[in-house]
Formats: sequence, structure tokens, C-alpha cells
Amino acid sequence: MANTMIGFEHMKKLSRKSPSKIVLLIIDGVGGLPHPETGKTELESAKKPNLDYIAKGSLCGLIDPISSGITPGSAPGHLAIFGYDPVKYSIGRGVLEALGVDLELKPEDIAARGNFCTVDDKGTITDRRAGRISTEKNAQLCQLLNNISVSGAEVSVIPVKEHRFVLIMRGEGLSPDLADSDPQQVGLAPKKIQALSPQAERAAEIANEFVLQARRLLRSRVANIPSANMVLMRGFSRLPGIPSLSEIYKLKSAAIAVYPMYRGLARLVGMEVLPTGDSITHQLESLHRHYADFDFFFVHFKSTDSRGEDGNFEAKVRAIEEVDNSLPKLLDLNPDVLIVTGDHSTPATLAMHSWHPVPFMLKSKWCFPDSVTEFSERACLDGGMGRFSAVEIMPLAMANALKLEKFGA
Amino acid sequence: MANTMIGFEHMKKLSRKSPSKIVLLIIDGVGGLPHPETGKTELESAKKPNLDYIAKGSLCGLIDPISSGITPGSAPGHLAIFGYDPVKYSIGRGVLEALGVDLELKPEDIAARGNFCTVDDKGTITDRRAGRISTEKNAQLCQLLNNISVSGAEVSVIPVKEHRFVLIMRGEGLSPDLADSDPQQVGLAPKKIQALSPQAERAAEIANEFVLQARRLLRSRVANIPSANMVLMRGFSRLPGIPSLSEIYKLKSAAIAVYPMYRGLARLVGMEVLPTGDSITHQLESLHRHYADFDFFFVHFKSTDSRGEDGNFEAKVRAIEEVDNSLPKLLDLNPDVLIVTGDHSTPATLAMHSWHPVPFMLKSKWCFPDSVTEFSERACLDGGMGRFSAVEIMPLAMANALKLEKFGA
Repeated sequence: MANTMIGFEHMKKLSRKSPSKIVLLIIDGVGGLPHPETGKTELESAKKPNLDYIAKGSLCGLIDPISSGITPGSAPGHLAIFGYDPVKYSIGRGVLEALGVDLELKPEDIAARGNFCTVDDKGTITDRRAGRISTEKNAQLCQLLNNISVSGAEVSVIPVKEHRFVLIMRGEGLSPDLADSDPQQVGLAPKKIQALSPQAERAAEIANEFVLQARRLLRSRVANIPSANMVLMRGFSRLPGIPSLSEIYKLKSAAIAVYPMYRGLARLVGMEVLPTGDSITHQLESLHRHYADFDFFFVHFKSTDSRGEDGNFEAKVRAIEEVDNSLPKLLDLNPDVLIVTGDHSTPATLAMHSWHPVPFMLKSKWCFPDSVTEFSERACLDGGMGRFSAVEIMPLAMANALKLEKFGA
Repeated sequence: MANTMIGFEHMKKLSRKSPSKIVLLIIDGVGGLPHPETGKTELESAKKPNLDYIAKGSLCGLIDPISSGITPGSAPGHLAIFGYDPVKYSIGRGVLEALGVDLELKPEDIAARGNFCTVDDKGTITDRRAGRISTEKNAQLCQLLNNISVSGAEVSVIPVKEHRFVLIMRGEGLSPDLADSDPQQVGLAPKKIQALSPQAERAAEIANEFVLQARRLLRSRVANIPSANMVLMRGFSRLPGIPSLSEIYKLKSAAIAVYPMYRGLARLVGMEVLPTGDSITHQLESLHRHYADFDFFFVHFKSTDSRGEDGNFEAKVRAIEEVDNSLPKLLDLNPDVLIVTGDHSTPATLAMHSWHPVPFMLKSKWCFPDSVTEFSERACLDGGMGRFSAVEIMPLAMANALKLEKFGA
């Protein structure tokens, strides 16, 4: 792969607006490992005439979302494909949690991940998850905590699942440079939230005041859920200052994703999130409806990853077939550049995200088609791109859409 | 190869302790070039059923220890495989010489490479190697020089082969930032040792005082070896501050190497050096004895490199066959991750280290086995890793041993 990457400053100068369309289909966790009995991966086991048809006219390869051996979480996996160095542009736990419940953060908002927990009379943590209270009870408690008022900031609490919530602190001049209160183990008391830099002193006071009031409310009779008598806070963070796809590539971009976290990641890089129904067919209908209005579309398909994480090889194969089945609707549009890949591998045999490189293909009038005739891990290894870094995808997409000027004279 | 490498700070957070075992077999200088008559390399000429058997279930590739066209010395070649950027973590000549005679340096010790040489009456160098005096005479002279006493530091002299020795200066607050006294050519006088920074003034005084006293002793009647009447010093250096494999990867690691330099390099990165007999069979017996006590084993096989440097193609082929023959003893242990590679190529046709990339294979339950069925330069080129950088090996080993958490959420 290329040793030297063109930075965003150069890319801003090289990119130009044009009517061509780029569609990026991310099949989450699509890469897999051979089934111990058949020796074939999920992709190799699936009937996928449309993916294979695309492969025949494409430039293929295998991407490393981060680097050799490193298993990507969903956020770095997507950011890399969107062109951002996933190590440089890291996303804090609190922000990620907020994205996951479809919250639209403002640039100055501080988000933190909260757990309801149980402490004993001495204040020592006995259960970091409050006995995994129900999501309904969580919603009641969050409603209660939303009565908290702290001077100098607006604090709000949004329920996630079971014992999890998101705290948002909105106020002027607050820094997210705060340590966790969660000691990550039972038998200890929650820690006071410490400012990690002088600018964060005010935010620390506000966060500690929130925790104090939360403790009072949760142990009061109003709350009445004894196992959830305290909160643990971690991952204080703010939206990373990330240049948008529009700034870098002059792209008007849109996301068609069902799950909140992926919609949040898309917003983070400046995409507009389009309304869509739940299935890939609905998503591609949305693509058709909005096709005239954007230059770049990110379509996210989730269930390949979910079935991989379940360890259900057959179900992951069926999920691949489901995407494949929907593809004629995408091919109808004949986008100038069509990219199909995944944000990481999720082999059903491992039942988790993995470090294995991910099949990739790019079809355009101007790509150099290689000899690959099948969309799979093994076949893509022989592709024209070989093995390469995911951050190279956006420049390739732009080039094939003829949206990049030449570098130097 | 990967664009973004995960730094040690990230790796420290991602790595976790687990019972899985990693075995790294380095066949020194294993890569070669085709024999002009047969067109086959040393690996392609050898009968090596066990190496080929491993290749069949492995992820294969070709490593560049440093980068295209750069021929690695043994130290950078090994450091890269151990995961250290060989350009950033460079090892001074003096330290390397000390490692080569199995000296255990302290972090503050300054080591320098010394040559006995011949100077004429005017002090001009006439032979930089003192007529390559015998190793026995060298030992006598070093014994004599060990009578030297300098105020402010303990100096000691250790014989290497022929005209070579190591000088160790041990004292408080000494800096190794010193220029060589060796002008690297005859017809000039040895240079006074210059401090290259103000902090090195004291060390320069000590080094010059050592040279002065050495000159006096060597020209005296006690020495009585007229060709060795002066010393030339170069490569003043200290152990590099190198984080250990235990700090970075939480690995308890051990080395099974016969030659002192490789034991020294292993110690440098925090490995425990295990006792072993001289043959690869003895080394693998040592591996068996200590298998329960460590997570990571580095086994070093030397004679492939030595025979390559001799320019003896047939002998290098036999050395490869010797390793191959021993492998069932290694495979018996069925390590969770087995890696076989070399620190550089040493083609017998060139009779020296070379820049050619080196065959690599990694076998584990979780590797993606590729279509390679033979362990050789040509076959590994088609491997799943393609051509890649040696510093990617450690993250891959860790991932395949399931010793890494995912990066980001």
C-alpha cells in the first residue's frame, strides 16, 4: 500500500464538486472464517449472485480498518472507511453512548456514560449494575434524575438499556477533561470526579454536584428501587473536532442506517440522516427517493454482524443472502462509484469482532477490473488492491467518481 | 501494509494476560536467492516436509524487516520482529558488541567497541587491526588493560575475537554522547575523544584518560606485542530505553538462543534467557522443559545465516533440513500461535545479509489459512499477508493468541 497518505489539507484543494454519485454499502462484520466442517467462510457459503456479479467488474481487495492484528470497534471501523485515521480521531465512551441513543450532541456538550449501581450503608459498591434493573425502571429513574438542577450548566439524563444511561452537561466553558467516578470494581466507593486539567475544574464541580443530588434522590422514598441507589460515571467526552466530508471532499452526503449508533457516526462526519424503514429493501427505497439530492450515500446493513456475534454461522449466511437479494434495486441506479465492504470481520466461529481483513470491492466505469470473480475473503486477496488500509477508500472513491484534480503540475 | 500502526501506549491498554502460548522460531537469514544452475532458492532446494506441513495450515507472507531495499543487521532485524521500530530503537555499536559477548549491561553503563591497532613513532596509524592478532594475545592484552584505573569511573575491558574488545565505563552521571577516536583509515593519528554535548565532558575525560594509560601500557615492555601498541575506540553507547514485552504486551517471555548476541537482544526486550545445549534439538528440549512457565518463546536458529554468509549454498540447504527435522518436537507442543520466519535474508549466492523480504508463516486456530502449501520465498508471496512490515508480527501474534481487546467501542 501507499506509504505516503495525502492529508486533508491537500484533499480539500484537490476535491471538486461534480454530479457523479458514490454509494458506499457497508455490510457490518461481513468478513468471516472457514466453517470447521466445510472449510468455507460465511461469504463462500452464501448464494450471492449479485455480489459476485459486482465483483466481476470491480477492483477488489482486503482492507485493514486499523492495522494488522487490531480488532476494530464499530466507531473506528466506520471512521476509517469514511477516511479518518481511527487512532487520531477517537471517540469517547460518553459520546458513543449518546450517538447510540440517537442524541444530537452540540459541539460544546459533555457526554458521559452512567451506570445505576448498588452501594451499601458505608457507600461501598456491591453491584456495579444495580442487579441489571429493567429498562422500564431505568426510564423511571432517569425521569426522576431529570429534576436535578445544577448552577452553571444544564444537566440531562437519557436512559439507555437496563442499568445504563447517558448524562449530558451543557454549559459555557466546560472541559470534558474529567476522570471517571467508576472504580470498575466492587468493594470500593465511587471516586470523586477529578478535573484532569485546570480548565476542567468547573465541569468537575458540576459533575460531582450531579452525583451528590442523584445519590440523594435515589436513596429517597421517591425512587423506591433499592438496588439502584447510586450512579457511576465514566467516559466524559465531547464530540471530536472532526472535519466534515463536505469540508474535505465537497460532498453532500447522506446516511441510510437503521441503528442509532451508525446514524450518530454519520452525523459526526456531516452526513444528513435519511428516514428509512427497518429492512434493507426499505433502505434502498429511501436511496431511490433521495438519489437526486446527494453526491454520496452510506448504506449500513447490520444483521451480518449481529448473527456473527451470536455465533450463528447459518443465520449469518442468510443475512448475506438477504443483502444480495436486495442488490438489483441498488444496481438499477447504476451509481458512478459503488463500494461494498465491511467495517470489520465478525466470524461466526469466533462470535465476536475480529482483526481479520475485510473483503472490499469498488465498481466504476474507471476502475481497473481485476481477475476476481467472487466476493469473498480468499478471492479478494487476489484483487487489484491486494491488502490495504481502509483510510485509502475515500481517495479511491473520489478518484473513480472523477471528483479529484491532479496533484501538482 | 497497515497505514496506521497502533503505538505501544494503545497496545498496553489493549493487551491482556491469558494462558495461551506463542512460539516464535527465527531461522536466521533463511531467505535466499535462486541457485544459478537450478533456479531454486535454498528453501526451494531443501527437503522440508515439516515446514511445508505448517505452511499448509498457516497464514503466510513475506516480511520487510526495515523497508524496501534496506539490508538489516541482526539487531534491527530481530527488534522489528519483536515489535520495535528498528529505526527508532537503534542500538549503538558498543552495546551490540557487549551483547555479543554475553555481558549484562546496567542501564547507566557506557559501552564502546575497541580495536587494538598499530601506530608508528609519530603516532600515525599504520594498521587499524594490529595485524589481526590472535584471540589469545588479545586476552593477554585485555588483562593488562584491566589494571587501568581512572578517577570517577570503573573501566573494564573484555576481549572479543582477534583485535576486538569492549570497553565498559561505569560511573555516575556519565553521558555516552562521545565521538569516535577511530578515524577509520590509516595514515592519520587516532583522534582525541570529543564530548558531543556539555553533559558528556566528564565521560570524554575518562575515555581519553583510559586511552592515554592504554597507550602507555601497550608500548611498555610488559605488553610485548609490538603490532598492538595503541587502541581505537568507537560506538560509545548505552542500552536504549526500550519498553519490555512484559510492559507492552503483558507477556512473560523467554529466549532459547545459542549465540550470545541473540541472548543479549532478548534480554534487552525483557526476555528471560533459558539454559540450552548447542543444537536445535537441545533448544527444543529446553522449550519443553520450560513450556509451562512462559507465555512467549523466542527460539533462535543460527547456522542458516552462517552458511549463507559462507556462500555455501549446499550447507545452507542442509541447515534448513536440520531445522525441519527437529520440528516434530515443536509441533508436539501444539502452541496456540506458532510463527516461523527469519530476521533477514542471507542468500548463499551473495554471501551476506540482504534486503530481500523474508518468508513468514503464522499458524493458529484463528488464522485465515491461505492457499500456500510450501514454505519458500515464491510461495509465501501468494500468502494471505502478502508483503508486509515485520513490526506487524507482534500485533498479529497477540490477536491470534486472543490476547488483545478490541480497539474502540
